Amino acid sequence: MYTLYFAPGTAAMLTHLVLLECGVPYELKAVDLAAGEQRSDAYLALNPGGTVPTLIVDGAPHGETAALALLLTERHPEAGLAPAVGAPDRAVFLQWMFYLANTLQPGFRQWFYADEFVPDSAEAIAEAGRQRIEACWERIAAHLDNHGPHMLGETFSVVDLYVVMLMRWSRNMPRPATDWPSLAALATKVKARPSWKTLYEREQLSEWA
Amino acid sequence: MYTLYFAPGTAAMLTHLVLLECGVPYELKAVDLAAGEQRSDAYLALNPGGTVPTLIVDGAPHGETAALALLLTERHPEAGLAPAVGAPDRAVFLQWMFYLANTLQPGFRQWFYADEFVPDSAEAIAEAGRQRIEACWERIAAHLDNHGPHMLGETFSVVDLYVVMLMRWSRNMPRPATDWPSLAALATKVKARPSWKTLYEREQLSEWA
Repeated sequence: MYTLYFAPGTAAMLTHLVLLECGVPYELKAVDLAAGEQRSDAYLALNPGGTVPTLIVDGAPHGETAALALLLTERHPEAGLAPAVGAPDRAVFLQWMFYLANTLQPGFRQWFYADEFVPDSAEAIAEAGRQRIEACWERIAAHLDNHGPHMLGETFSVVDLYVVMLMRWSRNMPRPATDWPSLAALATKVKARPSWKTLYEREQLSEWA
Repeated sequence: MYTLYFAPGTAAMLTHLVLLECGVPYELKAVDLAAGEQRSDAYLALNPGGTVPTLIVDGAPHGETAALALLLTERHPEAGLAPAVGAPDRAVFLQWMFYLANTLQPGFRQWFYADEFVPDSAEAIAEAGRQRIEACWERIAAHLDNHGPHMLGETFSVVDLYVVMLMRWSRNMPRPATDWPSLAALATKVKARPSWKTLYEREQLSEWA
Protein backbone atom coordinates (compact mmCIF):
# COMPACT_ATOMS: atom_id res chain seq x y z
CA MET A 1 0.00 0.00 0.00
CA TYR A 2 1.33 3.40 -1.05
CA THR A 3 0.21 6.84 0.15
CA LEU A 4 0.47 9.70 -2.35
CA TYR A 5 0.46 13.33 -1.23
CA PHE A 6 -0.65 15.28 -4.29
CA ALA A 7 -2.31 18.39 -5.64
CA PRO A 8 -4.50 18.11 -8.76
CA GLY A 9 -2.78 18.58 -12.10
CA THR A 10 0.71 19.12 -10.65
CA ALA A 11 3.90 17.09 -11.10
CA ALA A 12 2.28 14.53 -8.80
CA MET A 13 0.19 13.50 -11.83
CA LEU A 14 3.06 11.42 -13.14
CA THR A 15 3.42 9.44 -9.92
CA HIS A 16 -0.36 9.04 -9.76
CA LEU A 17 -0.57 7.80 -13.36
CA VAL A 18 2.19 5.28 -12.74
CA LEU A 19 0.44 3.97 -9.62
CA LEU A 20 -2.71 3.49 -11.69
CA GLU A 21 -0.81 1.82 -14.54
CA CYS A 22 0.81 -0.55 -12.02
CA GLY A 23 -2.61 -1.44 -10.63
CA VAL A 24 -1.40 -1.25 -7.05
CA PRO A 25 -3.43 -0.07 -4.05
CA TYR A 26 -2.77 3.46 -2.84
CA GLU A 27 -4.30 6.11 -0.66
CA LEU A 28 -4.52 9.75 -1.78
CA LYS A 29 -3.88 12.73 0.49
CA ALA A 30 -4.54 16.17 -0.96
CA VAL A 31 -2.07 18.97 -0.16
CA ASP A 32 -3.76 22.38 -0.29
CA LEU A 33 -1.20 24.46 -2.16
CA ALA A 34 -3.37 27.60 -2.17
CA ALA A 35 -3.49 27.45 1.63
CA GLY A 36 0.29 26.94 1.80
CA GLU A 37 0.01 23.47 3.33
CA GLN A 38 3.19 22.43 1.49
CA ARG A 39 5.11 24.80 3.76
CA SER A 40 3.61 23.49 7.00
CA ASP A 41 5.97 21.85 9.49
CA ALA A 42 4.09 18.59 9.12
CA TYR A 43 4.53 18.49 5.35
CA LEU A 44 8.14 19.72 5.38
CA ALA A 45 8.96 16.83 7.70
CA LEU A 46 7.87 14.51 4.87
CA ASN A 47 9.28 16.59 2.01
CA PRO A 48 12.00 19.12 2.93
CA GLY A 49 11.64 20.89 -0.44
CA GLY A 50 7.94 21.57 0.18
CA THR A 51 6.96 20.13 -3.18
CA VAL A 52 4.39 17.60 -4.38
CA PRO A 53 4.36 14.69 -4.78
CA THR A 54 5.46 12.80 -1.72
CA LEU A 55 5.03 9.05 -1.85
CA ILE A 56 5.17 6.88 1.25
CA VAL A 57 7.02 3.71 0.28
CA ASP A 58 7.48 0.99 2.89
CA GLY A 59 6.67 3.57 5.56
CA ALA A 60 9.21 6.19 4.44
CA PRO A 61 8.46 9.44 2.54
CA HIS A 62 10.15 10.14 -0.80
CA GLY A 63 9.92 13.00 -3.31
CA GLU A 64 10.85 13.82 -6.93
CA THR A 65 8.17 12.66 -9.32
CA ALA A 66 10.54 11.28 -11.99
CA ALA A 67 12.48 9.31 -9.38
CA LEU A 68 9.22 7.93 -8.00
CA ALA A 69 7.99 6.97 -11.47
CA LEU A 70 11.26 5.15 -12.11
CA LEU A 71 11.13 3.46 -8.71
CA LEU A 72 7.58 2.22 -9.30
CA THR A 73 8.55 0.72 -12.68
CA GLU A 74 11.29 -1.19 -10.87
CA ARG A 75 9.08 -2.36 -8.01
CA HIS A 76 6.33 -3.49 -10.37
CA PRO A 77 8.11 -4.88 -13.43
CA GLU A 78 5.04 -6.93 -14.38
CA ALA A 79 3.35 -3.67 -15.47
CA GLY A 80 5.93 -3.39 -18.28
CA LEU A 81 6.25 0.39 -18.01
CA ALA A 82 10.00 0.65 -18.60
CA PRO A 83 12.86 -1.32 -20.13
CA ALA A 84 14.36 -3.51 -17.42
CA VAL A 85 17.93 -3.01 -16.20
CA GLY A 86 20.17 -4.43 -18.92
CA ALA A 87 17.57 -4.16 -21.71
CA PRO A 88 18.74 -2.48 -24.94
CA ASP A 89 16.41 0.53 -24.54
CA ARG A 90 17.46 1.24 -20.99
CA ALA A 91 19.97 3.98 -21.97
CA VAL A 92 17.45 5.85 -24.14
CA PHE A 93 14.81 5.49 -21.44
CA LEU A 94 17.00 6.93 -18.66
CA GLN A 95 18.21 9.72 -20.93
CA TRP A 96 14.68 10.93 -21.61
CA MET A 97 13.64 10.67 -17.96
CA PHE A 98 16.50 12.99 -16.95
CA TYR A 99 16.07 15.30 -19.94
CA LEU A 100 12.40 15.88 -19.10
CA ALA A 101 13.24 16.39 -15.42
CA ASN A 102 16.16 18.79 -15.83
CA THR A 103 15.44 20.61 -19.10
CA LEU A 104 11.75 20.67 -20.00
CA GLN A 105 10.11 20.63 -16.57
CA PRO A 106 12.24 23.52 -15.19
CA GLY A 107 11.14 25.60 -18.20
CA PHE A 108 7.62 25.52 -16.78
CA ARG A 109 8.88 26.80 -13.45
CA GLN A 110 10.18 29.83 -15.36
CA TRP A 111 6.95 30.22 -17.30
CA PHE A 112 4.46 29.81 -14.45
CA TYR A 113 6.44 31.25 -11.54
CA ALA A 114 8.47 33.93 -13.32
CA ASP A 115 7.68 36.44 -10.57
CA GLU A 116 9.05 34.15 -7.85
CA PHE A 117 11.99 33.05 -9.98
CA VAL A 118 13.49 36.52 -10.33
CA PRO A 119 11.01 39.09 -9.05
CA ASP A 120 12.31 42.12 -10.98
CA SER A 121 12.53 40.42 -14.37
CA ALA A 122 9.36 38.39 -14.53
CA GLU A 123 8.49 39.20 -18.13
CA ALA A 124 11.94 38.37 -19.52
CA ILE A 125 12.08 35.19 -17.44
CA ALA A 126 8.70 34.00 -18.68
CA GLU A 127 9.67 34.72 -22.28
CA ALA A 128 12.95 32.79 -21.90
CA GLY A 129 10.93 29.96 -20.33
CA ARG A 130 8.60 29.91 -23.32
CA GLN A 131 11.51 29.70 -25.76
CA ARG A 132 13.11 26.95 -23.73
CA ILE A 133 9.88 24.93 -23.60
CA GLU A 134 9.27 25.31 -27.35
CA ALA A 135 12.84 24.20 -28.11
CA CYS A 136 12.14 21.07 -26.06
CA TRP A 137 8.91 20.35 -27.96
CA GLU A 138 10.87 20.77 -31.18
CA ARG A 139 13.44 18.23 -30.07
CA ILE A 140 10.91 15.73 -28.73
CA ALA A 141 8.73 16.02 -31.84
CA ALA A 142 11.78 15.42 -34.07
CA HIS A 143 12.52 12.31 -32.02
CA LEU A 144 8.92 11.08 -32.38
CA ASP A 145 8.95 11.79 -36.12
CA ASN A 146 12.02 9.57 -36.51
CA HIS A 147 11.54 6.99 -33.77
CA GLY A 148 7.85 7.17 -32.72
CA PRO A 149 5.01 6.74 -32.30
CA HIS A 150 5.98 6.41 -28.61
CA MET A 151 9.11 7.86 -27.03
CA LEU A 152 10.57 4.35 -27.06
CA GLY A 153 9.24 3.47 -30.51
CA GLU A 154 6.58 0.79 -30.62
CA THR A 155 6.64 0.36 -26.84
CA PHE A 156 4.59 2.47 -24.43
CA SER A 157 6.49 3.52 -21.29
CA VAL A 158 6.39 6.01 -18.43
CA VAL A 159 8.33 8.45 -20.61
CA ASP A 160 5.11 8.87 -22.61
CA LEU A 161 3.14 9.61 -19.45
CA TYR A 162 5.77 12.15 -18.42
CA VAL A 163 5.78 13.89 -21.82
CA VAL A 164 1.99 14.11 -21.94
CA MET A 165 1.70 15.43 -18.37
CA LEU A 166 4.10 18.22 -19.37
CA MET A 167 2.21 18.79 -22.64
CA ARG A 168 -0.92 19.36 -20.57
CA TRP A 169 0.83 22.21 -18.75
CA SER A 170 1.35 23.99 -22.08
CA ARG A 171 -2.36 23.99 -22.96
CA ASN A 172 -2.84 27.73 -22.44
CA MET A 173 0.56 28.84 -23.73
CA PRO A 174 1.00 30.85 -26.92
CA ARG A 175 2.05 27.67 -28.69
CA PRO A 176 0.71 24.55 -26.95
CA ALA A 177 2.58 21.29 -27.47
CA THR A 178 -0.32 19.90 -29.52
CA ASP A 179 0.83 22.23 -32.31
CA TRP A 180 3.42 19.56 -33.12
CA PRO A 181 1.52 16.74 -34.87
CA SER A 182 3.58 13.84 -33.51
CA LEU A 183 3.16 15.20 -29.99
CA ALA A 184 -0.59 15.62 -30.50
CA ALA A 185 -0.78 12.00 -31.68
CA LEU A 186 1.08 10.82 -28.58
CA ALA A 187 -1.29 12.77 -26.32
CA THR A 188 -4.28 11.16 -28.02
CA LYS A 189 -2.85 7.71 -27.27
CA VAL A 190 -2.12 8.48 -23.62
CA LYS A 191 -5.49 10.15 -23.01
CA ALA A 192 -7.23 7.01 -24.28
CA ARG A 193 -5.69 4.91 -21.53
CA PRO A 194 -7.87 3.95 -18.54
CA SER A 195 -5.23 5.40 -16.17
CA TRP A 196 -5.75 8.89 -17.63
CA LYS A 197 -9.52 8.74 -17.24
CA THR A 198 -9.30 7.39 -13.69
CA LEU A 199 -6.81 10.07 -12.73
CA TYR A 200 -9.17 12.79 -14.01
CA GLU A 201 -11.93 11.42 -11.81
CA ARG A 202 -9.79 11.03 -8.71
CA GLU A 203 -8.03 14.39 -9.05
CA GLN A 204 -11.33 16.02 -10.16
CA LEU A 205 -9.74 17.51 -13.25
CA SER A 206 -11.71 18.65 -16.28
CA GLU A 207 -9.49 20.79 -18.59
CA TRP A 208 -7.63 19.05 -21.42
CA ALA A 209 -9.44 15.73 -20.80
CA MET B 1 34.64 -0.31 -24.68
CA TYR B 2 33.02 3.08 -24.16
CA THR B 3 33.83 6.38 -25.85
CA LEU B 4 33.32 9.53 -23.80
CA TYR B 5 33.01 12.95 -25.44
CA PHE B 6 33.93 15.40 -22.73
CA ALA B 7 35.30 18.82 -21.87
CA PRO B 8 37.48 19.22 -18.76
CA GLY B 9 35.71 20.03 -15.52
CA THR B 10 32.19 20.04 -17.01
CA ALA B 11 29.19 17.82 -16.25
CA ALA B 12 31.05 15.10 -18.14
CA MET B 13 33.20 14.72 -15.01
CA LEU B 14 30.51 12.61 -13.38
CA THR B 15 30.34 10.15 -16.27
CA HIS B 16 34.15 10.07 -16.38
CA LEU B 17 34.45 9.40 -12.65
CA VAL B 18 31.93 6.58 -12.86
CA LEU B 19 33.81 4.98 -15.78
CA LEU B 20 36.97 5.11 -13.66
CA GLU B 21 35.22 3.71 -10.60
CA CYS B 22 33.82 0.87 -12.71
CA GLY B 23 37.31 0.08 -13.95
CA VAL B 24 36.10 -0.39 -17.53
CA PRO B 25 38.06 0.51 -20.68
CA TYR B 26 37.10 3.75 -22.41
CA GLU B 27 38.40 6.18 -24.96
CA LEU B 28 38.30 9.94 -24.39
CA LYS B 29 37.41 12.48 -27.08
CA ALA B 30 37.74 16.14 -26.17
CA VAL B 31 35.04 18.55 -27.36
CA ASP B 32 36.43 22.08 -27.74
CA LEU B 33 33.67 24.19 -26.20
CA ALA B 34 35.55 27.46 -26.68
CA ALA B 35 35.71 26.76 -30.42
CA GLY B 36 31.99 25.91 -30.48
CA GLU B 37 32.60 22.29 -31.47
CA GLN B 38 29.52 21.26 -29.48
CA ARG B 39 27.40 23.09 -32.06
CA SER B 40 29.04 21.43 -35.08
CA ASP B 41 26.84 19.24 -37.27
CA ALA B 42 29.02 16.24 -36.44
CA TYR B 43 28.55 16.69 -32.69
CA LEU B 44 24.85 17.58 -32.89
CA ALA B 45 24.29 14.31 -34.75
CA LEU B 46 25.56 12.56 -31.60
CA ASN B 47 23.97 14.89 -29.09
CA PRO B 48 21.04 17.01 -30.35
CA GLY B 49 21.22 19.28 -27.30
CA GLY B 50 24.84 20.19 -28.02
CA THR B 51 25.93 19.36 -24.49
CA VAL B 52 28.70 17.29 -22.95
CA PRO B 53 28.99 14.47 -22.12
CA THR B 54 28.06 12.06 -24.86
CA LEU B 55 28.82 8.42 -24.16
CA ILE B 56 28.90 5.81 -26.90
CA VAL B 57 27.32 2.68 -25.46
CA ASP B 58 27.12 -0.44 -27.63
CA GLY B 59 27.71 1.78 -30.66
CA ALA B 60 24.95 4.32 -29.92
CA PRO B 61 25.41 7.86 -28.53
CA HIS B 62 23.64 8.90 -25.34
CA GLY B 63 23.60 12.09 -23.29
CA GLU B 64 22.60 13.36 -19.84
CA THR B 65 25.34 12.82 -17.31
CA ALA B 66 23.09 11.66 -14.44
CA ALA B 67 21.35 9.14 -16.73
CA LEU B 68 24.72 7.86 -17.90
CA ALA B 69 25.99 7.56 -14.34
CA LEU B 70 22.90 5.56 -13.41
CA LEU B 71 23.21 3.41 -16.52
CA LEU B 72 26.85 2.58 -15.76
CA THR B 73 26.00 1.53 -12.20
CA GLU B 74 23.44 -0.86 -13.68
CA ARG B 75 25.77 -2.24 -16.36
CA HIS B 76 28.59 -2.76 -13.86
CA PRO B 77 26.91 -3.83 -10.62
CA GLU B 78 30.15 -5.43 -9.38
CA ALA B 79 31.51 -1.91 -8.81
CA GLY B 80 28.93 -1.44 -6.05
CA LEU B 81 28.27 2.20 -6.90
CA ALA B 82 24.51 2.23 -6.33
CA PRO B 83 21.83 0.27 -4.49
CA ALA B 84 20.53 -2.43 -6.82
CA VAL B 85 16.96 -2.44 -8.07
CA GLY B 86 14.83 -3.62 -5.15
CA ALA B 87 17.38 -2.70 -2.46
CA PRO B 88 16.03 -0.68 0.50
CA ASP B 89 18.11 2.43 -0.37
CA ARG B 90 17.02 2.50 -3.99
CA ALA B 91 14.28 5.13 -3.42
CA VAL B 92 16.60 7.50 -1.57
CA PHE B 93 19.28 6.98 -4.20
CA LEU B 94 16.99 7.80 -7.15
CA GLN B 95 15.52 10.79 -5.32
CA TRP B 96 18.95 12.39 -4.86
CA MET B 97 20.01 11.68 -8.44
CA PHE B 98 16.97 13.57 -9.75
CA TYR B 99 17.18 16.33 -7.16
CA LEU B 100 20.78 17.09 -8.09
CA ALA B 101 19.92 16.96 -11.82
CA ASN B 102 16.81 19.14 -11.73
CA THR B 103 17.33 21.49 -8.78
CA LEU B 104 21.01 22.00 -7.92
CA GLN B 105 22.67 21.59 -11.33
CA PRO B 106 20.31 24.05 -13.12
CA GLY B 107 21.21 26.63 -10.47
CA PHE B 108 24.73 26.65 -11.87
CA ARG B 109 23.38 27.31 -15.34
CA GLN B 110 21.82 30.45 -13.90
CA TRP B 111 24.99 31.41 -12.07
CA PHE B 112 27.52 30.80 -14.85
CA TYR B 113 25.43 31.62 -17.93
CA ALA B 114 23.16 34.33 -16.57
CA ASP B 115 23.73 36.47 -19.66
CA GLU B 116 22.60 33.69 -21.99
CA PHE B 117 19.77 32.65 -19.71
CA VAL B 118 17.95 35.98 -19.89
CA PRO B 119 20.22 38.56 -21.54
CA ASP B 120 18.63 41.69 -20.09
CA SER B 121 18.52 40.52 -16.50
CA ALA B 122 21.88 38.82 -16.03
CA GLU B 123 22.65 40.25 -12.61
CA ALA B 124 19.27 39.33 -11.10
CA ILE B 125 19.42 35.87 -12.66
CA ALA B 126 22.89 35.18 -11.26
CA GLU B 127 21.83 36.35 -7.82
CA ALA B 128 18.74 34.12 -7.90
CA GLY B 129 20.99 31.26 -9.01
CA ARG B 130 23.32 31.87 -6.07
CA GLN B 131 20.43 31.77 -3.61
CA ARG B 132 19.10 28.62 -5.18
CA ILE B 133 22.48 26.89 -5.02
CA GLU B 134 23.03 27.88 -1.39
CA ALA B 135 19.57 26.60 -0.44
CA CYS B 136 20.54 23.26 -2.00
CA TRP B 137 23.81 23.12 -0.03
CA GLU B 138 21.81 23.85 3.10
CA ARG B 139 19.47 20.96 2.40
CA ILE B 140 22.22 18.51 1.43
CA ALA B 141 24.35 19.47 4.45
CA ALA B 142 21.35 18.93 6.76
CA HIS B 143 20.90 15.49 5.20
CA LEU B 144 24.58 14.66 5.73
CA ASP B 145 24.48 15.92 9.31
CA ASN B 146 21.62 13.53 10.04
CA HIS B 147 22.32 10.61 7.73
CA GLY B 148 25.98 10.94 6.64
CA PRO B 149 28.86 10.71 6.27
CA HIS B 150 27.93 9.75 2.68
CA MET B 151 24.71 10.68 0.91
CA LEU B 152 23.56 7.09 1.49
CA GLY B 153 24.93 6.85 5.02
CA GLU B 154 27.81 4.46 5.54
CA THR B 155 27.84 3.47 1.85
CA PHE B 156 29.71 5.35 -0.86
CA SER B 157 27.74 5.76 -4.12
CA VAL B 158 27.64 7.79 -7.32
CA VAL B 159 25.49 10.35 -5.52
CA ASP B 160 28.64 11.34 -3.62
CA LEU B 161 30.56 11.78 -6.88
CA TYR B 162 27.72 13.89 -8.25
CA VAL B 163 27.54 16.12 -5.16
CA VAL B 164 31.30 16.68 -5.10
CA MET B 165 31.48 17.47 -8.82
CA LEU B 166 28.84 20.15 -8.24
CA MET B 167 30.66 21.37 -5.10
CA ARG B 168 33.73 21.91 -7.26
CA TRP B 169 31.76 24.28 -9.48
CA SER B 170 31.07 26.49 -6.45
CA ARG B 171 34.77 26.94 -5.61
CA ASN B 172 34.91 30.60 -6.68
CA MET B 173 31.42 31.56 -5.56
CA PRO B 174 30.79 34.01 -2.69
CA ARG B 175 29.99 31.05 -0.47
CA PRO B 176 31.61 27.83 -1.73
CA ALA B 177 30.04 24.54 -0.70
CA THR B 178 33.03 23.74 1.51
CA ASP B 179 31.67 26.34 3.92
CA TRP B 180 29.32 23.60 5.12
CA PRO B 181 31.44 21.24 7.29
CA SER B 182 29.64 18.02 6.40
CA LEU B 183 29.99 18.86 2.70
CA ALA B 184 33.67 19.67 3.12
CA ALA B 185 34.16 16.30 4.83
CA LEU B 186 32.44 14.52 1.96
CA ALA B 187 34.65 16.31 -0.59
CA THR B 188 37.76 15.24 1.32
CA LYS B 189 36.65 11.61 1.11
CA VAL B 190 35.87 11.76 -2.62
CA LYS B 191 39.09 13.60 -3.48
CA ALA B 192 41.09 10.86 -1.77
CA ARG B 193 39.76 8.23 -4.17
CA PRO B 194 42.02 7.02 -6.99
CA SER B 195 39.29 7.87 -9.52
CA TRP B 196 39.48 11.57 -8.61
CA LYS B 197 43.26 11.69 -9.00
CA THR B 198 43.19 9.83 -12.30
CA LEU B 199 40.47 12.10 -13.64
CA TYR B 200 42.55 15.18 -12.79
CA GLU B 201 45.45 13.74 -14.77
CA ARG B 202 43.39 12.69 -17.78
CA GLU B 203 41.32 15.91 -17.94
CA GLN B 204 44.45 17.95 -17.10
CA LEU B 205 42.75 19.76 -14.26
CA SER B 206 44.56 21.51 -11.44
CA GLU B 207 42.17 23.76 -9.48
CA TRP B 208 40.45 22.30 -6.41
CA ALA B 209 42.54 19.12 -6.52
